[in-house]
Amino acid sequence: METNRLEAFSDGVIAIIITIMVLELKVPSGAGFANLQPILPIFLSYVLSFIYVGIYWNNHHHLLHAARRVSAGVLWANLHWLFWLSLFPVATAWIGTNRLAPAPTAAYGGILLMAAIAYFVLQRAIVANEGPDSILATALGSDWKGKLSPLLYIAAIPLAFVDPRVSAALYVSVALLWLIPDRRIERALAKRESLT
Amino acid sequence: METNRLEAFSDGVIAIIITIMVLELKVPSGAGFANLQPILPIFLSYVLSFIYVGIYWNNHHHLLHAARRVSAGVLWANLHWLFWLSLFPVATAWIGTNRLAPAPTAAYGGILLMAAIAYFVLQRAIVANEGPDSILATALGSDWKGKLSPLLYIAAIPLAFVDPRVSAALYVSVALLWLIPDRRIERALAKRESLT
Amino acid sequence: METNRLEAFSDGVIAIIITIMVLELKVPSGAGFANLQPILPIFLSYVLSFIYVGIYWNNHHHLLHAARRVSAGVLWANLHWLFWLSLFPVATAWIGTNRLAPAPTAAYGGILLMAAIAYFVLQRAIVANEGPDSILATALGSDWKGKLSPLLYIAAIPLAFVDPRVSAALYVSVALLWLIPDRRIERALAKRESLT
Amino acid sequence: METNRLEAFSDGVIAIIITIMVLELKVPSGAGFANLQPILPIFLSYVLSFIYVGIYWNNHHHLLHAARRVSAGVLWANLHWLFWLSLFPVATAWIGTNRLAPAPTAAYGGILLMAAIAYFVLQRAIVANEGPDSILATALGSDWKGKLSPLLYIAAIPLAFVDPRVSAALYVSVALLWLIPDRRIERALAKRESLT
Repeated sequence: METNRLEAFSDGVIAIIITIMVLELKVPSGAGFANLQPILPIFLSYVLSFIYVGIYWNNHHHLLHAARRVSAGVLWANLHWLFWLSLFPVATAWIGTNRLAPAPTAAYGGILLMAAIAYFVLQRAIVANEGPDSILATALGSDWKGKLSPLLYIAAIPLAFVDPRVSAALYVSVALLWLIPDRRIERALAKRESLT
Repeated sequence: METNRLEAFSDGVIAIIITIMVLELKVPSGAGFANLQPILPIFLSYVLSFIYVGIYWNNHHHLLHAARRVSAGVLWANLHWLFWLSLFPVATAWIGTNRLAPAPTAAYGGILLMAAIAYFVLQRAIVANEGPDSILATALGSDWKGKLSPLLYIAAIPLAFVDPRVSAALYVSVALLWLIPDRRIERALAKRESLT
Repeated sequence: METNRLEAFSDGVIAIIITIMVLELKVPSGAGFANLQPILPIFLSYVLSFIYVGIYWNNHHHLLHAARRVSAGVLWANLHWLFWLSLFPVATAWIGTNRLAPAPTAAYGGILLMAAIAYFVLQRAIVANEGPDSILATALGSDWKGKLSPLLYIAAIPLAFVDPRVSAALYVSVALLWLIPDRRIERALAKRESLT
Repeated sequence: METNRLEAFSDGVIAIIITIMVLELKVPSGAGFANLQPILPIFLSYVLSFIYVGIYWNNHHHLLHAARRVSAGVLWANLHWLFWLSLFPVATAWIGTNRLAPAPTAAYGGILLMAAIAYFVLQRAIVANEGPDSILATALGSDWKGKLSPLLYIAAIPLAFVDPRVSAALYVSVALLWLIPDRRIERALAKRESLT
């Protein structure tokens, strides 16, 4: 099986997740700018989740682009990752409508953590398929971002009960960390193309 | 007509069905973890339906991958199958919001049954197109899973009025049965590729 | 510009329209089968609209498959047709929630009429691009179905104020008329392929 | 990375945005034609936004069609543009439910302005990739429409507090201005093809 259909299906789900998140941004109840104020926290949580989904979409692109084969295990690892992504809209709306209350802030971190673990598993499944000496395996290297992010989420979850703003700051930091796309894979692919 | 556009369209519908199911998972009404409790049964029914849709997506992939031609009959058989899939979100929400009440549990089984029958018809339509000696026909073989699943649904529907938990156990069992993807087709395709 | 991206975009919109229609099928308010009764008319209108969208998807496939070029005019004719299709969900929900009341029944016919006209214009735009002696132009032939359907809708709209069931019967008849897919194009394409 | 997947993902998001906008067109509350009146302003704002999204889809097509390479910067510029497009549904519903009240009319212009700036940035990012002497750079030429539109939005935003109808007239004028698709790129591509 080629990677094309897996890409297309994942793109479809991600596109819908992004757009469903915006559905939580309800139409303001009145006609004045003051009516925008209650939806501002929802808007900010939407922006953060949009960036997270964008980061995943970017990295997923590079990941599948470097893959040559798709096994049944990869298909299920991908679906598992999409499952956790599909919970982003409800987690985003919960944190947004409760303005960084402790439980929603911790839950948001929990969903981020599960998505990160699922992505890690997906990466492992693809690398296992490609072989330990494959371009992908070399390109991923130490994968320090992929290892650091879950640790930061794990720290942020209990911290939500101390001060939710610290957790929020951690979520924003991880997003900034990843905004720089996975150039390792890009570079390794460029090298492969220049060799052939 | 090639199978590409049928795949792409089906993928689109399936991607949206998966994401619409999650819309039923309403934002908790308060800011505490206790507010998650009322949506827990909806979450569990979402997980089960997600797995079912994932199984169908996987098998549908393998099925179309093995097909070489698409006839008007296949197009309609595919739309008919997508019609029953499109009822998954409402059936999932009904069973979830009523915590395994008899009628929703039976109705959920009814939708699963209709989707299974529709998928069986789709399979027949594609096999009829490919010919009885085609790789696909050989690969499907006795198709014991495809024949056993509807029987289990037919048993689960009346059992919902005796004890809905038995029906739920049956739905989970069928999902587990199918989680092992259709390796028959994969194997037959691999054989074809190795011959050519 | 190739037809691929136009197909993919149209497929996306159609897939979402189909799935949005099912959103109008609200979760029953109670746990008994009796609670299904109020949503039965909505279900029936959903079935009819699903069939209509399926017919359009099928015919649109054949139409674009026979096209070789896409002009700016074709892009806009296609968007115009998708605009009217996008009103199917609200028209379906209106007729369904009001159980064939005159105004919703007439409005449903109005949307069907506009979609039919838009599809006719799209067909003309593509044929104009392909030339009057093209395979597509020959394949479409007299296009009696495409000419009869709008006439039946035009008849059904005022009849909704006499007896909405007559209008509903007309809408069902047109659907049955079209359920037989556009074999003309299929046949003409097969002929072209056998010549080359 | 090829432009295909970027196109497919953007198409998915745009297709969903178009269909989500129509969700704001609520089912009329009664069975008479009089019940259509309250949703008429929402319908009109839907029509305008549909045309805007259609224009963007058209121009985005031509833009990506002329691009040969996609960099990480282009991916993010594209996501940034999709972010502002994703706010069209809520902006459309706000202006529609408040019948051209000043604040919603100004906010609508603000979203249009941000989307226009984001599109401009995307265009720059692609041109930077292609080189200043590329076909795309030549084709875009002075890009007077792309420079005039933001100016008209900037004028329309404060004017919403004087007379919102003037702002609305400006939004409609910009749409009409763009309805003529980006023939420059089409022409330049045709020239390239005729040269090779």
